[in-house]
Amino acid sequence: MRIIRGRTGTRTVWGEVEGDTVHVTAGMRGERTGETVPFADVTLLAPAEGGKVVCVGRNYLDHIRELGNDKGDLPTEPGIFLKGANALAEPDGTVAYPDWTENFHYEGELALVIGTRARHLTPQNALAHVAGFTCANDLTARDRQKTDLQWFRAKAADRFCPLGPWLVPDLDPADLRVQTRVNGETRQDGRTSSMIFPVVDVLVYLTRFVTLEPGDVVLTGTPEGVGPVQPGDTVEVEVEGVGVLRTRIGPVA
Amino acid sequence: MRIIRGRTGTRTVWGEVEGDTVHVTAGMRGERTGETVPFADVTLLAPAEGGKVVCVGRNYLDHIRELGNDKGDLPTEPGIFLKGANALAEPDGTVAYPDWTENFHYEGELALVIGTRARHLTPQNALAHVAGFTCANDLTARDRQKTDLQWFRAKAADRFCPLGPWLVPDLDPADLRVQTRVNGETRQDGRTSSMIFPVVDVLVYLTRFVTLEPGDVVLTGTPEGVGPVQPGDTVEVEVEGVGVLRTRIGPVA
Repeated sequence: MRIIRGRTGTRTVWGEVEGDTVHVTAGMRGERTGETVPFADVTLLAPAEGGKVVCVGRNYLDHIRELGNDKGDLPTEPGIFLKGANALAEPDGTVAYPDWTENFHYEGELALVIGTRARHLTPQNALAHVAGFTCANDLTARDRQKTDLQWFRAKAADRFCPLGPWLVPDLDPADLRVQTRVNGETRQDGRTSSMIFPVVDVLVYLTRFVTLEPGDVVLTGTPEGVGPVQPGDTVEVEVEGVGVLRTRIGPVA
Repeated sequence: MRIIRGRTGTRTVWGEVEGDTVHVTAGMRGERTGETVPFADVTLLAPAEGGKVVCVGRNYLDHIRELGNDKGDLPTEPGIFLKGANALAEPDGTVAYPDWTENFHYEGELALVIGTRARHLTPQNALAHVAGFTCANDLTARDRQKTDLQWFRAKAADRFCPLGPWLVPDLDPADLRVQTRVNGETRQDGRTSSMIFPVVDVLVYLTRFVTLEPGDVVLTGTPEGVGPVQPGDTVEVEVEGVGVLRTRIGPVA
């Protein structure tokens, strides 16, 4: 099943996709209202509203090594950073190349959206709080990551988190292929089974410290193969069982 | 004028305080609805809803020096980090001493809440986007700031941002006294005129990278004198022209 958020006419709706038809629902996890719209008439939006975006850094060993951060020790706890909802961008959208970076990178990731308020989750109940899984591109101004006090503009600037194209509930996140292509050429090709901290562990860890609210997004880290994009490039993040999140990199602005 | 958010009976309301009376308004900056409630019947809440909390680190030279971060150069750009709305806590509330830190610090600060959507602000229009000024306590797990990848749980854990007691609009933030007391003893006593990046500069800088939405909070940095608290302590942050934000530190939990 696919849960979409999108624009139809002047309205923004949530809905469940069946074939060519969207069954409109009362919110992200609401009941069907009885209204249907053709899928072709919906312009997809990021399938999350409100909230924060909580991200795991360095969750794949091969990615830690490629960034030169491997000093022999594996992290003993997940490394976490934040984006705000301002960072969310729609699938099939264009993100301008910021004029304040000279090293703008893609990072393809498995993401999830929280369905019900979550605090002090356990390994047993963690996945029951997930509304669905999707693809994210954790866009990063790599040069600003190093020069700035914290990863604020490097990670959390407007539209630095394309998300979508939809939510897939009831997906087992344990061993999914995660690929990123730039202009059709594969740059990342990993599996979530290589995560240092699997999805359930991440949710248990996060909710020791913060309450996750419905609509909050969790990004689970990126495999090796990150690299720069240029204006005009098309980036595709594909997560097995979800689909493809496509983003065009616009002119410098 | 004081703008409050609070609970009366089972409702949460916004209102303007005149003497002993709260004139209920339609939202943070809405018109008066005609309803009034006695101020004494309102339990104050953090005067911000939703959104992100955007914070300036190291904005007072004396605080940079006390943390040993002064390597001779002043920062040339503000250092920014984020909390989520989960961090907001009400005035006159109790914040538990987290069981995962051994060095829990207060940081008294001037804060502001955004009134209207703000992007690419200029020095001329920046303050027109501020709904009002208030006090914040940027609670910090100092030990975790050093051990973790980013300042996530060190700064952004639940209830790590007591805010209030109310918003004061039309306050000139250029030269306000900011004091913090622990159990009545003064620990911080600075003036906003000592900021490296004044409030207007911070707003102009931030909105080059992120859109600030109504209800988003900006913390403007802390003067020297930060230090630890213990269970049972009472911390007061006082900003000249605003009032006093009081927080009790609860038992370890």
